[in-house]
Amino acid sequence: MSSNYRNFRNNVPWLILFLEAVFIVLFYFSFSQGDESRSMVSYAAFQDVNHMVIFGFGFFLTFLKRYGFSSTGFNLLIVVLGVQCSVLIEGLFYFLLEIPHEGDLKRITKAAVSVTAVVISAGAVLGKTNPVQLILMTVVEIIVFHVSRRINSMYLQVPDDIGMMHVHLFGAYFGLAVSSCFSEPSPRSEKNASTPKSALLSMLGTLFLWVFWPSFNSVLSVDNKQKVTYNTYFALAVSAVTAFMFSAMTTKDGKFRMAHIHSAVLAGGVAVGYTANRIQYPWIAMILGLLASVITVLGSYCLQRCLYPALEIHDSSGVHFTFGFPAVLGGLGQVVLLIAENGTSLTRLGYSVMFHIGAFCVTISMALITGLITG
Amino acid sequence: MSSNYRNFRNNVPWLILFLEAVFIVLFYFSFSQGDESRSMVSYAAFQDVNHMVIFGFGFFLTFLKRYGFSSTGFNLLIVVLGVQCSVLIEGLFYFLLEIPHEGDLKRITKAAVSVTAVVISAGAVLGKTNPVQLILMTVVEIIVFHVSRRINSMYLQVPDDIGMMHVHLFGAYFGLAVSSCFSEPSPRSEKNASTPKSALLSMLGTLFLWVFWPSFNSVLSVDNKQKVTYNTYFALAVSAVTAFMFSAMTTKDGKFRMAHIHSAVLAGGVAVGYTANRIQYPWIAMILGLLASVITVLGSYCLQRCLYPALEIHDSSGVHFTFGFPAVLGGLGQVVLLIAENGTSLTRLGYSVMFHIGAFCVTISMALITGLITG
Amino acid sequence: MSSNYRNFRNNVPWLILFLEAVFIVLFYFSFSQGDESRSMVSYAAFQDVNHMVIFGFGFFLTFLKRYGFSSTGFNLLIVVLGVQCSVLIEGLFYFLLEIPHEGDLKRITKAAVSVTAVVISAGAVLGKTNPVQLILMTVVEIIVFHVSRRINSMYLQVPDDIGMMHVHLFGAYFGLAVSSCFSEPSPRSEKNASTPKSALLSMLGTLFLWVFWPSFNSVLSVDNKQKVTYNTYFALAVSAVTAFMFSAMTTKDGKFRMAHIHSAVLAGGVAVGYTANRIQYPWIAMILGLLASVITVLGSYCLQRCLYPALEIHDSSGVHFTFGFPAVLGGLGQVVLLIAENGTSLTRLGYSVMFHIGAFCVTISMALITGLITG
Repeated sequence: MSSNYRNFRNNVPWLILFLEAVFIVLFYFSFSQGDESRSMVSYAAFQDVNHMVIFGFGFFLTFLKRYGFSSTGFNLLIVVLGVQCSVLIEGLFYFLLEIPHEGDLKRITKAAVSVTAVVISAGAVLGKTNPVQLILMTVVEIIVFHVSRRINSMYLQVPDDIGMMHVHLFGAYFGLAVSSCFSEPSPRSEKNASTPKSALLSMLGTLFLWVFWPSFNSVLSVDNKQKVTYNTYFALAVSAVTAFMFSAMTTKDGKFRMAHIHSAVLAGGVAVGYTANRIQYPWIAMILGLLASVITVLGSYCLQRCLYPALEIHDSSGVHFTFGFPAVLGGLGQVVLLIAENGTSLTRLGYSVMFHIGAFCVTISMALITGLITG
Repeated sequence: MSSNYRNFRNNVPWLILFLEAVFIVLFYFSFSQGDESRSMVSYAAFQDVNHMVIFGFGFFLTFLKRYGFSSTGFNLLIVVLGVQCSVLIEGLFYFLLEIPHEGDLKRITKAAVSVTAVVISAGAVLGKTNPVQLILMTVVEIIVFHVSRRINSMYLQVPDDIGMMHVHLFGAYFGLAVSSCFSEPSPRSEKNASTPKSALLSMLGTLFLWVFWPSFNSVLSVDNKQKVTYNTYFALAVSAVTAFMFSAMTTKDGKFRMAHIHSAVLAGGVAVGYTANRIQYPWIAMILGLLASVITVLGSYCLQRCLYPALEIHDSSGVHFTFGFPAVLGGLGQVVLLIAENGTSLTRLGYSVMFHIGAFCVTISMALITGLITG
Repeated sequence: MSSNYRNFRNNVPWLILFLEAVFIVLFYFSFSQGDESRSMVSYAAFQDVNHMVIFGFGFFLTFLKRYGFSSTGFNLLIVVLGVQCSVLIEGLFYFLLEIPHEGDLKRITKAAVSVTAVVISAGAVLGKTNPVQLILMTVVEIIVFHVSRRINSMYLQVPDDIGMMHVHLFGAYFGLAVSSCFSEPSPRSEKNASTPKSALLSMLGTLFLWVFWPSFNSVLSVDNKQKVTYNTYFALAVSAVTAFMFSAMTTKDGKFRMAHIHSAVLAGGVAVGYTANRIQYPWIAMILGLLASVITVLGSYCLQRCLYPALEIHDSSGVHFTFGFPAVLGGLGQVVLLIAENGTSLTRLGYSVMFHIGAFCVTISMALITGLITG
């Protein structure tokens, strides 16, 4: 076991070198068009997404005592590999499907959004994988996510900006599937302990995510950027309030606990992702944020007490209820909103349901297959 | 006492739930117009103010050892409640006074600026209030601030962007008045101790505020954004230099002390807030920054040694000299600048003085009344 | 020695006060033109550079245990003094050379970029100088840097945005020259130890620098902003991957070490600075990033083992291989790119080499002279 482990370790630099060499060679061929068309994405919007992925997710996962630096460092490694991989796969699709090219800045921005899925999955397997597995998971997940997104976009007429919002759903369930293939570590081990200091840094990461979420949701929407922004903001605000409420309610002394707030505060932003460009009045976004936060807190209680011990799944940083549940709720919300908008035209409704089932099937089946490969 | 305290604690979730329900219901009515007029506020400017309020003030107050996470968490809760409350009250004023509506992004931005007053007040009562009192204080202070701002704007012809700059003045004196109603905690208690680690995080918060202050001052100014930005930048730069100078002067070994820098470094930004759009040459802003820093350091010495023990006021994080004094100086600077500009037209001068007295009276009287209510 | 030291300490406040008074008086004369021409630099770009200088470099240097707060605080002091000084010198050059004035925001932005040189130099002498020496070094280095930049721009036809990119080269070698004048402190002293906590904060600083580097490289480029941005991004990404690879390769247990990543992750950004606006395909930027990272890691090994003990140079935070080597590589890359582009026109080639030698000579000679003065 130990020599096997060392063997894995020794492979890390060569694996990274091999990947990077492949990327550079592929870039040599794929970028040779050198188009200069102006992209719709501003530099500031790209920077916002970049900050969110690097800082937010980097520090979001520092709450476990042992993984302070590791999680921040691995996060950077995953992001830079994932972005390069994602840009290449997009370029490949453009080449194969003969789609006109987009601006370069837009390509990087889309890549940064896609890589969120990998970062969320990495949260689920944190502390259970070695670097080689993590790097392979990154590459496989990025490829599978783009294939799934392309299927949604070609066969189910999902617009590109909505299709991108599947990252949370995809990331959470992919991560869970991979995680279920690994044996659960000793449940109350020292590795899972958190300290006040690490909790504070994790809070910093959560605040980063919270602050940049409106940018994240609005970066790819072509029109209605402003509407997306304020709907997301209000959904997040109500989520935060609800998170504090539940935290005070469930603890005996009425104090706020970091762990509760940590998961529930972002739920509104995830849930509103699918529908933010279509919601007319902020009170709808606010109710969605409230429901997302409730479902996250309840989910975290039910799952950790009943379901996980039965299914032998271990979810290190709670990505299932932090990102998975609100994304499912967001999908439901989208269907409800569609019904409320045009209840008569059943054809569009059928499409929407179809696309949801499609996305779900692709996600979960792919996730299980990959889990077996990496495991 | 203990059961009373527990009673308070148990009310927290229900109070939050009640407030949030009221907010959603009011949003249902108030936002029903759904106007799509383009706002003058860019998304980047809104994000800057948002960052400043969430990160800057969140970490600015972490220097007390016991309140690391609490202050960051409470700050988020206060901000999200305050912003929703503030948007509603603005909407109510629009409805009552039949003013044409502004863009939605501008409404959130103005709400984020207003909530600064509450965050500053919260600094003054930090460690002395329970959450219920803090939440009530938030709602009351936001309402009172908007009433005071509306009075200034209607009867005293204060332009909207200058009226907003009263947040520091209002926040500091409101906080002091509330604080004076609470008994002083044991003066040298463990709760007020700071550690090197918390000091570093607090420095992080101070740097966040310092960096985003030019955005804060320029976000609501309609024209001359660039002039406001560089005047504020130079005032802040001179403040920082002066803060270091005083810190080295007052310590025996010539080392820099965090606590001094912490308060004085921001003084220039506060002081220049009223006049940044009218100052022609940066040297005026620089002298204002120098004076603000000097008054803050001197004020902190005099107040803590002489006045506070006499008046039995306890100001946890020094908001009085950090935000109160420089705001007063900024008001004086405005009057001096007005006299220098048009010394002959005494009518405008009278207005300006009137509006100052008005703002002061409203602030302090309201603050005392609320202090008694929450106390 | 001790009284001498105290004497130095006591001079700090008066020196700062004197400098600040001189700055205000000079601003009174220099800014009196009050031009209102629109600058090409947007406010967001200025803010990005400002963040990078304040946060990035502030926390980049916190990895030494003893200098947590000091390095962040001194960084702020150096930046605010340096920016004012830099704005004044630019104004002086405009006056003397009768160049038309630029917008005020552009002047501050250029000053913030220039001050990077001082911050890098400060890293080299960290823990060896007292505040008086640091402040004098700031003023002298800013003046020398602007003189050197003006010589390059007037006699060697270096465009302004490329000339600015010499900050890394200048800062690193100036810092080394100053550092060589001081006696090396006891090599394994407690002052140079780093803790896990400080390493995490330093990682925060490194991430800040990493994230804002594309802004830094693109802020002054007049056209091709987008090309500069994505070239820099890809160079940084490959640098980061290479840094992780080397870190895993050189440690026995295959774990990632912070110190390696810290230096090598930024190398790509420094190296690509000169050429980012001219590189056509991202794979060139990627190879440059790879080489920069390799040279940084190898350089750090060779220098610390062989060269430094021989030359008795002590480089506290490794600025030589973090900023110096990649900048040299970037310069070489520029020459190679020029040859590849127009191999026939030898005149331009000659110019380029001339300007490099010129910049090098000015830098190193000035640095040695100043080292003797401050030493």
